[in-house]
Amino acid sequence: MPSFLATAHSYQPGATGLPARCFTSPEMFDQELERLFCEHWVCLGHVAALSAPGDFLTTAWGSESVLVLRDHDGALRAFHNVCRHRGARLCVAESGRLGPTIQCLYHAWTYGLDGALLGAPHMDEVTGFARADYPLHQVALEHCDGLLFINLAAEPPPLAESLAPLPGKFARWNLPLLRRARRLEYTVAANWKLLFENFNECYHCPLVHPGLAKLTPFDSSENDLAEGPILGGFMALAPGRSSLTHSGNRCGALARDLPADDQRRVYFYSIFPNLLLSLHPDYVLLHTVWPQATNRTLVRCDWLFHPDSFEASDFNPDEAVAFWDEVNRQDWRVCELSQLGISSRAYRPGPYSPRESLTAAWDRQYLRAMGE
Amino acid sequence: MPSFLATAHSYQPGATGLPARCFTSPEMFDQELERLFCEHWVCLGHVAALSAPGDFLTTAWGSESVLVLRDHDGALRAFHNVCRHRGARLCVAESGRLGPTIQCLYHAWTYGLDGALLGAPHMDEVTGFARADYPLHQVALEHCDGLLFINLAAEPPPLAESLAPLPGKFARWNLPLLRRARRLEYTVAANWKLLFENFNECYHCPLVHPGLAKLTPFDSSENDLAEGPILGGFMALAPGRSSLTHSGNRCGALARDLPADDQRRVYFYSIFPNLLLSLHPDYVLLHTVWPQATNRTLVRCDWLFHPDSFEASDFNPDEAVAFWDEVNRQDWRVCELSQLGISSRAYRPGPYSPRESLTAAWDRQYLRAMGE
Amino acid sequence: MPSFLATAHSYQPGATGLPARCFTSPEMFDQELERLFCEHWVCLGHVAALSAPGDFLTTAWGSESVLVLRDHDGALRAFHNVCRHRGARLCVAESGRLGPTIQCLYHAWTYGLDGALLGAPHMDEVTGFARADYPLHQVALEHCDGLLFINLAAEPPPLAESLAPLPGKFARWNLPLLRRARRLEYTVAANWKLLFENFNECYHCPLVHPGLAKLTPFDSSENDLAEGPILGGFMALAPGRSSLTHSGNRCGALARDLPADDQRRVYFYSIFPNLLLSLHPDYVLLHTVWPQATNRTLVRCDWLFHPDSFEASDFNPDEAVAFWDEVNRQDWRVCELSQLGISSRAYRPGPYSPRESLTAAWDRQYLRAMGE
Repeated sequence: MPSFLATAHSYQPGATGLPARCFTSPEMFDQELERLFCEHWVCLGHVAALSAPGDFLTTAWGSESVLVLRDHDGALRAFHNVCRHRGARLCVAESGRLGPTIQCLYHAWTYGLDGALLGAPHMDEVTGFARADYPLHQVALEHCDGLLFINLAAEPPPLAESLAPLPGKFARWNLPLLRRARRLEYTVAANWKLLFENFNECYHCPLVHPGLAKLTPFDSSENDLAEGPILGGFMALAPGRSSLTHSGNRCGALARDLPADDQRRVYFYSIFPNLLLSLHPDYVLLHTVWPQATNRTLVRCDWLFHPDSFEASDFNPDEAVAFWDEVNRQDWRVCELSQLGISSRAYRPGPYSPRESLTAAWDRQYLRAMGE
Repeated sequence: MPSFLATAHSYQPGATGLPARCFTSPEMFDQELERLFCEHWVCLGHVAALSAPGDFLTTAWGSESVLVLRDHDGALRAFHNVCRHRGARLCVAESGRLGPTIQCLYHAWTYGLDGALLGAPHMDEVTGFARADYPLHQVALEHCDGLLFINLAAEPPPLAESLAPLPGKFARWNLPLLRRARRLEYTVAANWKLLFENFNECYHCPLVHPGLAKLTPFDSSENDLAEGPILGGFMALAPGRSSLTHSGNRCGALARDLPADDQRRVYFYSIFPNLLLSLHPDYVLLHTVWPQATNRTLVRCDWLFHPDSFEASDFNPDEAVAFWDEVNRQDWRVCELSQLGISSRAYRPGPYSPRESLTAAWDRQYLRAMGE
Repeated sequence: MPSFLATAHSYQPGATGLPARCFTSPEMFDQELERLFCEHWVCLGHVAALSAPGDFLTTAWGSESVLVLRDHDGALRAFHNVCRHRGARLCVAESGRLGPTIQCLYHAWTYGLDGALLGAPHMDEVTGFARADYPLHQVALEHCDGLLFINLAAEPPPLAESLAPLPGKFARWNLPLLRRARRLEYTVAANWKLLFENFNECYHCPLVHPGLAKLTPFDSSENDLAEGPILGGFMALAPGRSSLTHSGNRCGALARDLPADDQRRVYFYSIFPNLLLSLHPDYVLLHTVWPQATNRTLVRCDWLFHPDSFEASDFNPDEAVAFWDEVNRQDWRVCELSQLGISSRAYRPGPYSPRESLTAAWDRQYLRAMGE
């Protein structure tokens, strides 16, 4: 059993925010893409989108695009979305279902769903050309509890080693069974790290989220993971409230076998470097975070429910969507205000309060990962 | 009494324009922001916007935002618009009226109008934290004849030393009494210096401003300040004309006590680095100029009138606004054409004519200020 | 008589695409503008736009703008479109007819159509100023077979030396007589070189251009120029087809004196660095290509017909325009897909097929011209 500690108890005196250049320097930004987004396990979302053979999704960020698919043997695979001939992007849609092969739209080079080059018109006229030399460039893929992760490094460490607390940790919510009810995308005019610093504290909740603060009192947070790549814990639902919706009532089916204690809590975890995971009694919210520039970030937000929910006649996922859409926008706004002020020559990192101990821990994780 | 000299008489043979890199190099642009806009007295506009306690205005340029306010003791103060906690921009509106305090929208840190940190939730739990260590970062502020100036340098020289000719020079127009009738903003696709070079000569008036040239003949200019940070003088109104409006008639009350000679003149001064001041018998025009990029400049243009004007039943400031809006647009267009041509590899600085002696003087001031 | 060789016959084993940085590095892009677009003969289009004295056209790319005109003695001349006084761009329109002089819109400096400075108000007051010292900066101009070329180098080699195969090569189409029926402009989100690599092969035609592939079978290409600055040859029209239109019928008058063989062919040539020339029995298509950024290219596309066509009652150039507009868009799309994939960290130049021998030759020409 994990032990939970109130947020202020993991506070380390003297903690301050990161220096301005972490939020404004294009060179730092490029290093982050390189060291964090290309050498860590990055979450692409939930596996439900790839339930049938041939299902694929693509995820683009920066100059990269990765194609993830379920092949006809049922295996999940990930490839760089780049033809080996002249580099054309292969799959343009964000998701869909492939036939038996992937054909490049330019010159019809054709690959199997295992990445093997099956056909390349007229290349048999070239002495020494062997199709076996030109499979799609593979990308390391692992999935864990229904969450898909890729790693662009050549020889990444196993996911379970990099994100040691992860396997099994969220089993009570039956993540692998869930299905997506809705995706929203946001472009935020703030550095991606400000979103993580924001998510890791509820010190801002009273002023920024008056609605949320009524459902989960801002000082109710307790954490079991307060250092490392996964940070978080729970906040208690106020008496009479049973989930995060505008009404405070559940809008989906209660997760089966969820212990009584957990039915009175919402769990929040940030998973380094790009995932925010919010587990409610009746639904799970994923934010995947995609840096675009020092001051621009794409967020993909998925609402996941148990299949039982979809069969209920009164299922209304919009209650969860509307609630979090409002909370999201409140958060993006203060992140954007921070970005503006941090860009000023007058900015100096200020002191964190004890209520921001996890934000400080996230900064430490970031600095370690950057090798500083 | 200042002595006035015809423009051509201050001409220095051999004067040419500035080299292309001054208008096109991002590195030069950054140096200008640093050396000119952060170490000189920069004009924010007229003090009338801050008449009552609690009144504030914000001015943003580049990555900076400055908050200027009148505190509840009646004193004018300026601060970087940046919270000391996590850097959030404090005041978002361009102007308004504050209550007794300034509260950060993010975590509710609260400041007095003197900049003192009055409240910081839960920070009293932090050993060694003292609110006195976290006041808002102050910005040097001076006002002179109704004009507000700030200086971002740590220990700037007094305004009256930097802009020695300024104090009292425009007393005849009762600047401190004036009130703003209108503000227009323009974004010009040209380097900010082209706007100053343009303002400092009327060699272009016959072709660019046929309307203006009829009201103030382009060769009527005489200057009392022809070297240094303030440059300018007057142009004579043509017979039968009494101000710069489309009709040539005054649209506001004549400045009280304005000598008869000055009732037949319009005075134009550029005040380094960012103010253009145009004094008409019945109104005063301020252009404050805000560099945004090598080839993009924001201009804020304020029309100021004596309080008597606002009480006249036939007061129509739009006659002045419409006239200058047209003149402004004519100027921005030729500035934009210059920017385009100067960016060409063929551009070489050409020779100034005697009618451009003040433009040449402005360039010299610029080069001195840049330390070249 | 030139001898024609099937495309695959000029294939050089081992040929691969260019490295990624050629398509993504801003430094490479700047070098290309410098070494290729400022030191080679660049095509501005067809001379028909300048038939009468005073006719002018301007062409802008990057920071440059060139003014080409026919002077009142009938001579063609080219100048940098930059006033010698303060650098203002002189002619703003893309084309038009000049009066006896060119007057700068800013300070009325006035030039003859031969570039001589004729008037500069008040400059006669400047000791030592001589108008003869300030003519417009000339640009080398040559025309050949109706095509206008400029060269920004100070002392460029003659056009006939740089593009040796050009003079007389297209005499059968009477290029100097043609007139423009239509211009379309496209902005393509791809590096300019991808457009040339695309034009120089029809390996992509079966998949990308099903309509075109029916009219000119993709494997029918034979080339007479397979190395050097001009590359290309012909593709055979399918039986029953007489030109490239949606119907496959001609929409303009057949080029007079076109030999019977050539009436069954469409000729395609790329002329380094910026021209694509497509010669049909009844019309000629020019693509001039203008790099804007590593991943953005402007294309101007002109449809030219014999004057006889314009007099025919049933002349319908839109049949050619509509056909090629579709083909253009199909090409831009795959070029854009290539740009996306080449920007990925996974991209490695792939092997060319024998059907891409001219694309490989174009790459070699590019590398030679870049001095690599």
